[in-house]
Amino acid sequence: MGWLVALDYFGVAVFAISGALAAARRDMDLFGALVIAFVTALGGGTLRDMALGVHPVSWMFDVNYLFIISATVLLTMLWQPGVNASSRRILLLSDALGLAVFTMIGVQVALEKAGVSEPVAVMMGMMTGAAGGVIRDVICNEIPLIFQREIYAIASAMGGSIYCFLLWVGWSSMESTLAGIMLVFSVRVIAVKAQLALPAFKVHSIRS
Amino acid sequence: MGWLVALDYFGVAVFAISGALAAARRDMDLFGALVIAFVTALGGGTLRDMALGVHPVSWMFDVNYLFIISATVLLTMLWQPGVNASSRRILLLSDALGLAVFTMIGVQVALEKAGVSEPVAVMMGMMTGAAGGVIRDVICNEIPLIFQREIYAIASAMGGSIYCFLLWVGWSSMESTLAGIMLVFSVRVIAVKAQLALPAFKVHSIRS
Amino acid sequence: MGWLVALDYFGVAVFAISGALAAARRDMDLFGALVIAFVTALGGGTLRDMALGVHPVSWMFDVNYLFIISATVLLTMLWQPGVNASSRRILLLSDALGLAVFTMIGVQVALEKAGVSEPVAVMMGMMTGAAGGVIRDVICNEIPLIFQREIYAIASAMGGSIYCFLLWVGWSSMESTLAGIMLVFSVRVIAVKAQLALPAFKVHSIRS
Repeated sequence: MGWLVALDYFGVAVFAISGALAAARRDMDLFGALVIAFVTALGGGTLRDMALGVHPVSWMFDVNYLFIISATVLLTMLWQPGVNASSRRILLLSDALGLAVFTMIGVQVALEKAGVSEPVAVMMGMMTGAAGGVIRDVICNEIPLIFQREIYAIASAMGGSIYCFLLWVGWSSMESTLAGIMLVFSVRVIAVKAQLALPAFKVHSIRS
Repeated sequence: MGWLVALDYFGVAVFAISGALAAARRDMDLFGALVIAFVTALGGGTLRDMALGVHPVSWMFDVNYLFIISATVLLTMLWQPGVNASSRRILLLSDALGLAVFTMIGVQVALEKAGVSEPVAVMMGMMTGAAGGVIRDVICNEIPLIFQREIYAIASAMGGSIYCFLLWVGWSSMESTLAGIMLVFSVRVIAVKAQLALPAFKVHSIRS
Repeated sequence: MGWLVALDYFGVAVFAISGALAAARRDMDLFGALVIAFVTALGGGTLRDMALGVHPVSWMFDVNYLFIISATVLLTMLWQPGVNASSRRILLLSDALGLAVFTMIGVQVALEKAGVSEPVAVMMGMMTGAAGGVIRDVICNEIPLIFQREIYAIASAMGGSIYCFLLWVGWSSMESTLAGIMLVFSVRVIAVKAQLALPAFKVHSIRS
């Protein structure tokens, strides 16, 4: 599936932009922006491969990833995105597509290279799509965004689940992948547009 | 040792409660609570397995862990623990037992599956018991609790050491495990009850 | 290269001091200081080995590392370094040497034990030298120092690159290692003395 590789590169670039913008907001230097972009784009997949014991970690033998991230960070600095509606919309749609693609790749790696069960594979897909952003937020000293009402990882989990289900009922890997990507993308975009949010997890405060 | 597996499940549930309560205090949503609970309960063991190169990571081939954590988080939300003396006491005792059990499992995995030396095995036991809470605190943007005067990881280290020592003098694995669990549990509970604390690590301030 | 092992131990001790001082500034206890020292000194190499799939992680089968770190933390507490010019200069020079040595070891492990390409090996050298400090800062709830104008990881990347280049043009491993160490050390020390800094990564603020 060569198109999946192309979409993977696309997702890496989009996540790198998100990392570079986060670094810029925290007043980091160019090196910091490169590292945060790298961690946002490849951190989830790296954590997945380390947890599954899949070695070498995926990006290590395809130097394109490093080139794409470096070029993206430099272009982001030159491009100087402003706060206007169209650049926000493009970033949102791109990020949703990146989440969808990373999820599918994560589920497939977990099932095919590590042979784990479907629930664990769905978790690994979610980790591939969402953990990079969590690490980015932790390094930037913020409570991770996706733990605060965002319908983000849930979209990923839904797409990973439908992929496993469709494989199980006999769809081909490519059909299931396409369906999964469309579901993650739609859920994420609709959630943002309709301002859907998860309920807060409220517990009458206890100091333990 | 089937009872050790049962105690392990128990420890996972208790640590998941602690994670869910931390998430609630930081105003996270249900998904955030699930992730923090997961990380608190299984993060230490996962880090240990990744460091030791033990694959697959332990929880990946026993889907009970995911069920236990999910159910515990939901029950915690329904249960709504209040700040009263008895719920605090129960949580304290349960957490001490969880720490004790995780420590023993960590030491055993390190010795048996990775063949490391005793000092490293004791560290791995400590990591299994305490690193999940550290990751929880880091994600929640707090200085880890256990680095601030708490006698927590020290209790774990004492239990891991006595386990190795008793094995070495010829006790059976089960006897040594039981002795180790009792030591960790007692030290931790006594430390809290008697308000024992480690001395601060004071250095006349230097900016390096 | 026995002298490289000796320099490695030296670097571990220096990084442990930096970790212990960070813990002291955050009012941690002795245990916290030990953990932060450990993480600062060995975190980068551990992360490298986990990412490369090199097991066992390097320090696990050489108990000297644990002894060196423990002794260093205790001595730091007894020594009570004051804020005077000469102790600052010694710490700066020692830290630069530690960074240089860790970088070279990281590049060599990546090339020889994992067979990755040169760009990835340079990254792994940088990770070995700089990631420990990043983890230290994240646990201490601070934006990592090295992402804020410091010429630190860049020095490491330059040394790693020259090492690979010199190997490629036919220098021996020992000659290349020495050249790499001298380059990292010089760049780092000159950058601090001359107050060189990387430009900020400025993007007109966008909330994505």
